[in-house]
Amino acid sequence: MSDRAYPIVIGRHCLPRLGRLLKSLAAVRRIVIVSAPPVYRRYGRAILASLNASGFEARVVTVPDGERAKSLRWLSYLYDRLVEARCDRDVTVIALGGGVIGDLAGFAASTYLRGVRVVQVPTTLVAQVDASIGGKTAVNHPNGKNLIGTFHQPALVLADVAVLRTLPTRDLVGGLAEVVKYGVIADPALFQYLERHAPRLLACDLAALERIVVRSAAIKADVVGRDEREGGLRRILNYGHTLGHAVETVTGYRRVHHGEAIAIGMAFAARLGVRLGLCGWNLVERQDGLLRRIGLPARLPQGISTSGLMSSMAHDKKVRGGRLHFVLPRRVGAVVVRAVDTAEVRRALTAFAADRPG
Amino acid sequence: MSDRAYPIVIGRHCLPRLGRLLKSLAAVRRIVIVSAPPVYRRYGRAILASLNASGFEARVVTVPDGERAKSLRWLSYLYDRLVEARCDRDVTVIALGGGVIGDLAGFAASTYLRGVRVVQVPTTLVAQVDASIGGKTAVNHPNGKNLIGTFHQPALVLADVAVLRTLPTRDLVGGLAEVVKYGVIADPALFQYLERHAPRLLACDLAALERIVVRSAAIKADVVGRDEREGGLRRILNYGHTLGHAVETVTGYRRVHHGEAIAIGMAFAARLGVRLGLCGWNLVERQDGLLRRIGLPARLPQGISTSGLMSSMAHDKKVRGGRLHFVLPRRVGAVVVRAVDTAEVRRALTAFAADRPG
Repeated sequence: MSDRAYPIVIGRHCLPRLGRLLKSLAAVRRIVIVSAPPVYRRYGRAILASLNASGFEARVVTVPDGERAKSLRWLSYLYDRLVEARCDRDVTVIALGGGVIGDLAGFAASTYLRGVRVVQVPTTLVAQVDASIGGKTAVNHPNGKNLIGTFHQPALVLADVAVLRTLPTRDLVGGLAEVVKYGVIADPALFQYLERHAPRLLACDLAALERIVVRSAAIKADVVGRDEREGGLRRILNYGHTLGHAVETVTGYRRVHHGEAIAIGMAFAARLGVRLGLCGWNLVERQDGLLRRIGLPARLPQGISTSGLMSSMAHDKKVRGGRLHFVLPRRVGAVVVRAVDTAEVRRALTAFAADRPG
Repeated sequence: MSDRAYPIVIGRHCLPRLGRLLKSLAAVRRIVIVSAPPVYRRYGRAILASLNASGFEARVVTVPDGERAKSLRWLSYLYDRLVEARCDRDVTVIALGGGVIGDLAGFAASTYLRGVRVVQVPTTLVAQVDASIGGKTAVNHPNGKNLIGTFHQPALVLADVAVLRTLPTRDLVGGLAEVVKYGVIADPALFQYLERHAPRLLACDLAALERIVVRSAAIKADVVGRDEREGGLRRILNYGHTLGHAVETVTGYRRVHHGEAIAIGMAFAARLGVRLGLCGWNLVERQDGLLRRIGLPARLPQGISTSGLMSSMAHDKKVRGGRLHFVLPRRVGAVVVRAVDTAEVRRALTAFAADRPG
């Protein structure tokens, strides 16, 4: 993996360092920035100024904001722009935006001329702690999210936590769900930090944000560095995602945001862990408590049927050989991956659904 | 690279072994065969019988015959069929056909769920000796061939030289151009074998075909095994391709077939090598002689302007930093990669064009 190591630069107000950082990479020449209009309006000028100050010129390509840009259609649009600009293998693609931009631009970069360099500049919390690190790229298929994708490591990740101040609260809160996940799967100290400093984080205290982004990115990089292609260890990153993805699917990716769905999935996974004798009820309570303090749900919302969730999980790509795979906690900081009987999952889910708020 | 080693099975009448070979791979379950109608009509029944005899069931997806299938549109069609069949990560895609099918099915397999297994069953000579080995996949962009692609090694390659008997002569001859290439870049004995046995090969003698396919596949596998991603050594496989691709581009990929274009490209590269003092004129004559014996061109056809070729080469992805890269022979069996001055290339090309048949 050493040949695929790459710098992850995290800081406060560090966006203007982009130009100098690119100069430290070998032979950066032509640059194409891929972004969405709201992000580009906010940070485009600063990014261009930084690039120009280091002697780079860049083209900008924007795609629509939101999940709909992660389509074969907009992918094709990006290819057209790269071809039009006569980009050769020396081109560097900069993904400036949230997870959608990172996934789309990353996929385009991984397949244009069989792979050109991509630099991730994530501007949401979830992209900074999760999506921008690890090399997963994807576009959606009408029948499912991320069905088409590649593994393509970035040459550099630059995460400026100061940009998080402009995020809608709901997006910040959603990103914190992934940070809770890192605490449960790998780091009791991070979990405790979240318990103690939730208010500072929700108030966008930059020192606190920087601390959790650094720690989360380090965990993610460590896990994927030891298992790039999801053969084993990497699957622990799916904690909360088995049910979480199903919740997103049955609600059409609108009503429940990704982080919220993951929070619900973690709340469920902990309960499933108790049922299977892997952990104690105290873990459920402690995790529920933290999720609530952050403003995340720990129960299924009304109007979602357990049968819909079961059938969505059955079609999820985390199914192997027809059994349902779950990441289950043993304690805060340690999880295991288990194939769980469908009947057992259904019983646990029915109990979980019965417990939802009126 | 050892984790990416894969068996390349070459034989006469070995198609019926496919089922048993798949059983030797770990955990093959669902199978999707991607093919084109003419190929599938001829070999589909035998393939299915072989799979069924080993207890496998398979779906079949056909795409139009020819280069036009290598498009984002038909790629999207393949994704739809994979999703429709609810294929999960256990699916094995079998590419049954020539280079177009191998490239398209390989690209789909490399990106569906971020990569599923592909088995290459090449049915043309050029696919057997070149396209099926080495993991390059691609689709075309309206502005250029293979502009979008990945590296994705097959799990198995099964090449039955008996299927070559049904090829149009022009396709067989075109495939032999790649075999000549292997001789020049790596194997004087193979080159000599071609000189001696051209008539047997053109008559589809299976023993002779098997011999050159085995030797060519071994050379290709050896080169890409030592350099999967074209950083250095792999570029020698582009012998004849710098001008060859330009010839294909300016003739719209119709009038001059790929193998013919490569033959013209090799004839030119040898002359450029003489100009640069890398080899003697005797190499030009010997290579021209072999190309003619096989029925391949060693001169530019009428109606192609040198300026069109120059500008096409300038936009080719083999350009790095604006200079033209050529693979040039030192002697039969040894080549070097050189960045050549554009002015020098133009002079050589003008002389080459002046020498064409009336």
